[in-house]
Amino acid sequence: TTNFDLKEHPHSRLNILTGDWILVSPHRTKRPWQGKVEATQADERPAYDPQCYLCPTNKRADGSENPDYKASFVFTNDYSSLLLNTPDGGLNDDELLVANSQKGICRVISFSPRHDLTLPQMQTAEIRKVVDVWQTEFEDLASYPWIKHIQIFENKGDIMGCSNPHPHGQIWAQNSIPVEVAKETQQQKIYFEQKGTSLLADYVALELKRQERIIFENEHFVVLVPFWAVWPYETMIVSKRHITSIIYFTDEEKTALADAIKRLTVRYDNMFETSFPYSAGMHQSPVNMGDQPYWHWHMHFYPPLLRSATVKKFMVGYEMLANPQRDITAEFAADRLRNLSEVHYKVKA
Amino acid sequence: TTNFDLKEHPHSRLNILTGDWILVSPHRTKRPWQGKVEATQADERPAYDPQCYLCPTNKRADGSENPDYKASFVFTNDYSSLLLNTPDGGLNDDELLVANSQKGICRVISFSPRHDLTLPQMQTAEIRKVVDVWQTEFEDLASYPWIKHIQIFENKGDIMGCSNPHPHGQIWAQNSIPVEVAKETQQQKIYFEQKGTSLLADYVALELKRQERIIFENEHFVVLVPFWAVWPYETMIVSKRHITSIIYFTDEEKTALADAIKRLTVRYDNMFETSFPYSAGMHQSPVNMGDQPYWHWHMHFYPPLLRSATVKKFMVGYEMLANPQRDITAEFAADRLRNLSEVHYKVKA
Ligand SMILES: O=P(O)(O)O[C@H]1O[C@H](CO)[C@@H](O)[C@H](O)[C@H]1O
Ligand SMILES: O=P(O)(O)O[C@H]1O[C@H](CO)[C@@H](O)[C@H](O)[C@H]1O
Repeated sequence: TTNFDLKEHPHSRLNILTGDWILVSPHRTKRPWQGKVEATQADERPAYDPQCYLCPTNKRADGSENPDYKASFVFTNDYSSLLLNTPDGGLNDDELLVANSQKGICRVISFSPRHDLTLPQMQTAEIRKVVDVWQTEFEDLASYPWIKHIQIFENKGDIMGCSNPHPHGQIWAQNSIPVEVAKETQQQKIYFEQKGTSLLADYVALELKRQERIIFENEHFVVLVPFWAVWPYETMIVSKRHITSIIYFTDEEKTALADAIKRLTVRYDNMFETSFPYSAGMHQSPVNMGDQPYWHWHMHFYPPLLRSATVKKFMVGYEMLANPQRDITAEFAADRLRNLSEVHYKVKA
Repeated sequence: TTNFDLKEHPHSRLNILTGDWILVSPHRTKRPWQGKVEATQADERPAYDPQCYLCPTNKRADGSENPDYKASFVFTNDYSSLLLNTPDGGLNDDELLVANSQKGICRVISFSPRHDLTLPQMQTAEIRKVVDVWQTEFEDLASYPWIKHIQIFENKGDIMGCSNPHPHGQIWAQNSIPVEVAKETQQQKIYFEQKGTSLLADYVALELKRQERIIFENEHFVVLVPFWAVWPYETMIVSKRHITSIIYFTDEEKTALADAIKRLTVRYDNMFETSFPYSAGMHQSPVNMGDQPYWHWHMHFYPPLLRSATVKKFMVGYEMLANPQRDITAEFAADRLRNLSEVHYKVKA
């Protein structure tokens, strides 16, 4: 027998959703840090900013004027990365230079008329309205028969490349399947074909037995640090029911998702008493490609902070050239998140 | 026929080395930037810093004292991510929680006794000595029969997670094949089995015909922006000869590699007249696994800067959840790099 211990010894873990491996170095937390320290973000914003292109009644880049909206507001990104009118075409030079035309739609969703809020500072009932918009937007985009994939996501905080602090998210829909989604499709499909069950349903059942990486659950969702987490406090929200996409969420499930997002993001803010930056987004079944019953809806949160509000994890040299590496274990991260309050630190008692 | 144009229309490109795709949005360069602006790094450093753990004669974390070295200096990382004495072992819980013990050696290479230099500021003859060290270290690490992969890399600049500005690189050697290397092995192997030639040799021959993405070449190396570049000014140095690893570099090739690194990194610094940050590293044949004749040595440079010394490209939301995206084309980037001077901006005429 062996005295190998996940809590102590360097090891690799398999991401069952992508098939990729990550390197975990639990002993390395004692490393001193003399590297880059991020500025803390000025966090006091006005409820309305006349310069903000997302605030109600303001002008946008294309000259149009935002409505005086009261909940959410959706519009086509003025600097869309994907366009509707891209001509078909491609290049294949000896199978060495290979390119394909890409067609798509990029939309922006303002989560609130209030410039000074973020998801964790909004009421669960307000977040619920955002979930409603995600569902209707997904349905609407899926009605274009050439759209195959719809990516709903949010970049929060300027260290996550967010260029406007007004609470908002994005949707990029396109005529092909992106790399990460192709990997998850493949892994879920193989598992479903072999076992007849959903990979994530079985995974969540096992995690609920183990109780080592669960942060909390509500009636319809489980929130956990995945065994193969890459980012220090990476988490995943998984639906308890085997649902292929947000289209099929019931009223109750939509409210429960809002509850899960609220409670998770409040914990994040409370960790370092700062507006916790992250990129978050849903993975779900591609559309207009026939039934993909192996797909199981889930939402990833990838937050970069490691040690404090100002020191993040860098995915650089070894990570870019070899594979992702982390210093704290998923179990340690889950423990910290589990023990944080669900009352936002800015809310006075 | 179609008027699809790689210079104008959104498209995806295939990375023939990994099999992954990236999204290119050439029309998006006009996007205004109100997001994060990085601080410019204070760039005036003393030739010797008594606080630096890499400077000659200084003390390190483990209490040992650095020699009064005159060229390079190699030692085992005091905070190694991989350790020699990890016990064997693993976990496989229903194929859902899967982990393996990892054993390895992490070394640090100081490139110069001078605290105030960087590779582009060193003489080609001095860089040549670094190449020598890379070769002997690779040979030495390959002599451990359980080591399968040796990752030589450098993180340059604090925005690339570098925690000490003293010029240095790292080597992480381990008992398994990292994800990115496994992908490149697979792609090169398939190509070699089908065509009997090296994927990268054929690719470079095609690029030399096209002349759209070549930056420069010397007798033994070609320096180019790969067709599938992800980072704005990503480049690759490829050996003209089909060499599987640095072990087989001749004297002439080692000098030519030093020349290529010098000329490329000087161009980088000249782009925004700043010490250009990047992560760089070599990909080459795994070791102690039998002959892998399809492997073709190359070196990647992944620099994050996009618009200026202070605005970088963020690989966030869409990129993390779906796939990498870039705004400028590889051809535009190659053009800029091709037209830059090879005399460092800090060198007075
Ligand atoms: O080893 P260093 O320089 O302390 O650390 C740096 O490089 C490592 C290897 O790419 C990364 O894992 C760290 O996140 C980064 O800060
Ligand atoms: O679309 P935005 O908010 O201007 O831009 C941000 O999100 C995009 C999608 O993840 C990224 O491509 C950009 O690098 C990032 O700055």
